[in-house]
Amino acid sequence: MDFIRQVLDRVGDKWSLLVIAALEAGPLRYTDLQRHVPGISQRMLTLTVRQLQQDGLVTRTAYAEVPPRVEYALTSLGRSLHHIVTSLITWVADHHGQIREHRAHTATRP
Amino acid sequence: MDFIRQVLDRVGDKWSLLVIAALEAGPLRYTDLQRHVPGISQRMLTLTVRQLQQDGLVTRTAYAEVPPRVEYALTSLGRSLHHIVTSLITWVADHHGQIREHRAHTATRP
Repeated sequence: MDFIRQVLDRVGDKWSLLVIAALEAGPLRYTDLQRHVPGISQRMLTLTVRQLQQDGLVTRTAYAEVPPRVEYALTSLGRSLHHIVTSLITWVADHHGQIREHRAHTATRP
Repeated sequence: MDFIRQVLDRVGDKWSLLVIAALEAGPLRYTDLQRHVPGISQRMLTLTVRQLQQDGLVTRTAYAEVPPRVEYALTSLGRSLHHIVTSLITWVADHHGQIREHRAHTATRP
C-alpha cells in the first residue's frame, strides 16, 4: 500500500497533472511544454518530466539534428491516465469558484 | 490560473484523495475514517479533513450526545468529485506494478 500511496502522490501532483494534460495533443519540445504549463519553473519542469519518464508515463526523444531537437511525448501508459487527468483538471476549472466561496465563508466564520 | 493550480494541488494530494474515497460509502467517525486510510497520521487526518471542510467538500457534524459523536461526510460538491478520485486510485492500483518496473529499469540504466 505504501508504494501505491507514493505513486498516487506522484501522479496527483499538480505539475504532473498539467504536463500530462499538455502532452495530450502530441509530442512537444521542452520550451513548448513550458509554455503549455504556465507558472512552472524550468527546474520544476525538468524534475517533473524526469519523474514521469522514470515512471514510464513520458518518453524523451533526442533527434541528432543541428541544432539538436528534444521532444517529450506520452507513452501508452501515460495516455491511459490522460482521461482521468483531464477530468480532474476540468472538475477543478468548473468548481474552483465554489471552493473559493467556501474558503471565504469558513475564513469569516467566528 | 494560480488559484486553479492551488486547488489542483489540494484535491490531487494523496491524503485528500484517499479520504474522499473512504467517505464514499457514507458518513464516518474520525476513528473509522483513520482506519479506512491506512498510514495517515492523526495530525495529517485532522489537517486534511479541515482543508476539505474549508473547500466545501466535506462536512463535520457533532451530535450532542454522551459521549459526543462527530461524523464526517461528503457534501454534494465532494460527491461530484468522487468518481474521478476513485478512477485515479483504481488506475494507480492497476498500474503501480508497471511503474515499479519502469523505475527499476531506469535506475539500472547507465
